[in-house]
Amino acid sequence: MSVGKDCLDLSNLDKQEIFELVALAESYEKGQKPKALKKDVKVANLFFENSTRTVTSFQMAEHNLGLSRFDLNLAASSVKKGETLSDTLKTVESIGMDIAVVRHSEDAWFNTVKQEGVKLALVNAGDGAGVHPSQTMLDLLTIKQEFGKFDGLNVLMVGDLSHSRVVNSDAHVFKKLGMGLTFAGPKEWWNEDLNNYGRYVELDEGIKDADVVMCLRVQNERLDDKEASSFSVDDYVSHYRVDEARAKLMKDSAIFMHPGPVNRGIEIESKLVDGPRSRIFKQMKNGVFARMALLTKVLQANDWMED
Amino acid sequence: MSVGKDCLDLSNLDKQEIFELVALAESYEKGQKPKALKKDVKVANLFFENSTRTVTSFQMAEHNLGLSRFDLNLAASSVKKGETLSDTLKTVESIGMDIAVVRHSEDAWFNTVKQEGVKLALVNAGDGAGVHPSQTMLDLLTIKQEFGKFDGLNVLMVGDLSHSRVVNSDAHVFKKLGMGLTFAGPKEWWNEDLNNYGRYVELDEGIKDADVVMCLRVQNERLDDKEASSFSVDDYVSHYRVDEARAKLMKDSAIFMHPGPVNRGIEIESKLVDGPRSRIFKQMKNGVFARMALLTKVLQANDWMED
Amino acid sequence: MSVGKDCLDLSNLDKQEIFELVALAESYEKGQKPKALKKDVKVANLFFENSTRTVTSFQMAEHNLGLSRFDLNLAASSVKKGETLSDTLKTVESIGMDIAVVRHSEDAWFNTVKQEGVKLALVNAGDGAGVHPSQTMLDLLTIKQEFGKFDGLNVLMVGDLSHSRVVNSDAHVFKKLGMGLTFAGPKEWWNEDLNNYGRYVELDEGIKDADVVMCLRVQNERLDDKEASSFSVDDYVSHYRVDEARAKLMKDSAIFMHPGPVNRGIEIESKLVDGPRSRIFKQMKNGVFARMALLTKVLQANDWMED
Repeated sequence: MSVGKDCLDLSNLDKQEIFELVALAESYEKGQKPKALKKDVKVANLFFENSTRTVTSFQMAEHNLGLSRFDLNLAASSVKKGETLSDTLKTVESIGMDIAVVRHSEDAWFNTVKQEGVKLALVNAGDGAGVHPSQTMLDLLTIKQEFGKFDGLNVLMVGDLSHSRVVNSDAHVFKKLGMGLTFAGPKEWWNEDLNNYGRYVELDEGIKDADVVMCLRVQNERLDDKEASSFSVDDYVSHYRVDEARAKLMKDSAIFMHPGPVNRGIEIESKLVDGPRSRIFKQMKNGVFARMALLTKVLQANDWMED
Repeated sequence: MSVGKDCLDLSNLDKQEIFELVALAESYEKGQKPKALKKDVKVANLFFENSTRTVTSFQMAEHNLGLSRFDLNLAASSVKKGETLSDTLKTVESIGMDIAVVRHSEDAWFNTVKQEGVKLALVNAGDGAGVHPSQTMLDLLTIKQEFGKFDGLNVLMVGDLSHSRVVNSDAHVFKKLGMGLTFAGPKEWWNEDLNNYGRYVELDEGIKDADVVMCLRVQNERLDDKEASSFSVDDYVSHYRVDEARAKLMKDSAIFMHPGPVNRGIEIESKLVDGPRSRIFKQMKNGVFARMALLTKVLQANDWMED
Repeated sequence: MSVGKDCLDLSNLDKQEIFELVALAESYEKGQKPKALKKDVKVANLFFENSTRTVTSFQMAEHNLGLSRFDLNLAASSVKKGETLSDTLKTVESIGMDIAVVRHSEDAWFNTVKQEGVKLALVNAGDGAGVHPSQTMLDLLTIKQEFGKFDGLNVLMVGDLSHSRVVNSDAHVFKKLGMGLTFAGPKEWWNEDLNNYGRYVELDEGIKDADVVMCLRVQNERLDDKEASSFSVDDYVSHYRVDEARAKLMKDSAIFMHPGPVNRGIEIESKLVDGPRSRIFKQMKNGVFARMALLTKVLQANDWMED
């Protein structure tokens, strides 16, 4: 399995393993104290791409588990001096780090660095357009809390389907757990690979059947380059924004999710972000418990934490 | 009062409340150990404007009080992804932070975020051209140590009166405590609002009566754009720099203060910064005790620290 | 001696003092626990020049010794507001730091700040083209582990001799300990001062006699400005890269070292970096023990740690 001595990707886990991770995250959410560490475990956070919520959430999870935390300031780093990711990781390993939590723009960076001999425990905090296991775990926890199950639920993902590692990461695991997936958004952002997981629908149709409406972030570069690109905020808003009119089409029990940060008024009407159907801030809260669960698995597989 | 569950502004405090805060800061300066915490209190430092001394001073105060500290690297943050301050604060709140210490360029940012539903405890480390409560508290502590009282003292503020939140912040509280205020500096930097607190004077006149001469920082953009702007360093230095000749006009017991960082040779002659009248480094030292006092109030009002 | 209350430069130490430091670093490498601290010792890390390995290595050493660590984000600092290094250091001293670990581009910055009245304990993590004591100490530890002695060993330094504080720093101490030095590299990068320590040789000659081949980093600006400068990567690689053919000329017992970060394929063939003669990652590991030893001396000289 690919959550063990490392935590790289959830896609090789079987249903039982996923359920156990969700259950562990739930127990942390209910106040379960972590098991004792067997040694002083040192973790380095290496975020080569910008983030606030993910890095802070990992930091809090690490703190709650009693790890010794080192946050590398990569803006001022030897990465700028042309060092490869493998050499940076071998450096932090040599310095005595036990775990590296890494976000990097290269797809499956962890395969490369493993081949190049990196040995410290690795936690994938997002790889390029690849996967984002801790995001998927927090999405699962949020859905489990809401519905008590996964099988038979319908999830509609709306928006920028082509650029989102959240989509890639969630779709595979959601399908494995028996959830039905549909996708809506601008046709030019459709990603053929998603045919493996569900079908493209019109937003106003798909929203009626969904238990979970997951809005995806419109990437900044699209918003910045309105002129230069073919992207029109007005077009997006009128066709794909989840607004109050569209929310009325939803089932009574249905909820909104969003991986954040939200462009209020673009992907979703601002008022809905704070409304009763929104689980957006709940997701952020769950992120800490999800990450504690994943790190616990890594710590136990390395025999650094009591079982 | 506005120092309680949050610490936003000292202007609503009555004299007794201010005296209590100064006394608490003094007790920390004399070596008093902080009371025990009732829980693991997590504090996030969010500095949206550059700072070294204020952030480091808060970090030391937090360390001395036993808080768990998280320093957000906002240069690499979702703020750049267009997130509002309220959403950033709701994120850190969701992640489990108990307190956010915030410096932000928007005046009274805390009112906005309170209206938008932010609930974690807030500490204002400077808001736009608004106030800077922890700076005012350290100025008060420095004056109290020197003179043993506030009532009847004369404070002369010199320099960039129009851009300084230190002036705004201090003037209101100083007047409430019975201190007399005068102001000197380039006429074009005069701020009409200051008529509420004192009067404009010629530097060479005002300096004779002052117990405290508080030099204000000339903002960098003025120094950088000497050509483009009407600002002349030479003119400033000859008319408004506190130099040895002017220092000779001062009362024997009078002192210099400066919020830092000092442009040596511009606001004040370099030699005087390190001389016997200077309390500039004492102010920095007092900053830690002042911040410990303000944070103690917040911790106790939230029932996170023993009374 | 200049490792005592501060750690600035190893050049004034006598052989016995150097041996003691190496022995202390070795004992840490073998698992010796540090002595107890007598107080809460606060250390500020101030890196005005980019670094990952040095800063992270110091952080780990500080962690292992039980120090309270404050990492200043100098990108967002009052340094940008024009503050002098002395004033920045007086600020962190006033705030309550006991030790500042500083890397700065000015040669012998510590002499300037001492003259200007800075009093907190200073650790030099690299000064301009001056020295880099903790790098020299980790190089010594690596050589000692390998050969069990220093006297009579031959060290060949290859590459950018004119820009490296590693060369300056190591050469003086290596000679004092009885090591023979030779230097190879582009003639235009020769540094006349090195005549005091050894002689210039052709790489293919010098490499036969060396026990240690120390490759030096080709500075980034040379690599970036290939067009603008006279520097040719191809020329460098063909004449001065340590590659497999040249490695065959080496003695059986000889090793490679490199201060890092390595430009793989430029200073040294990539394969050799990970090969059996390479001690490059061992050096990084030793960096933590070397820094623990230097900090221990500072802590004990200041009576902050048990002897």
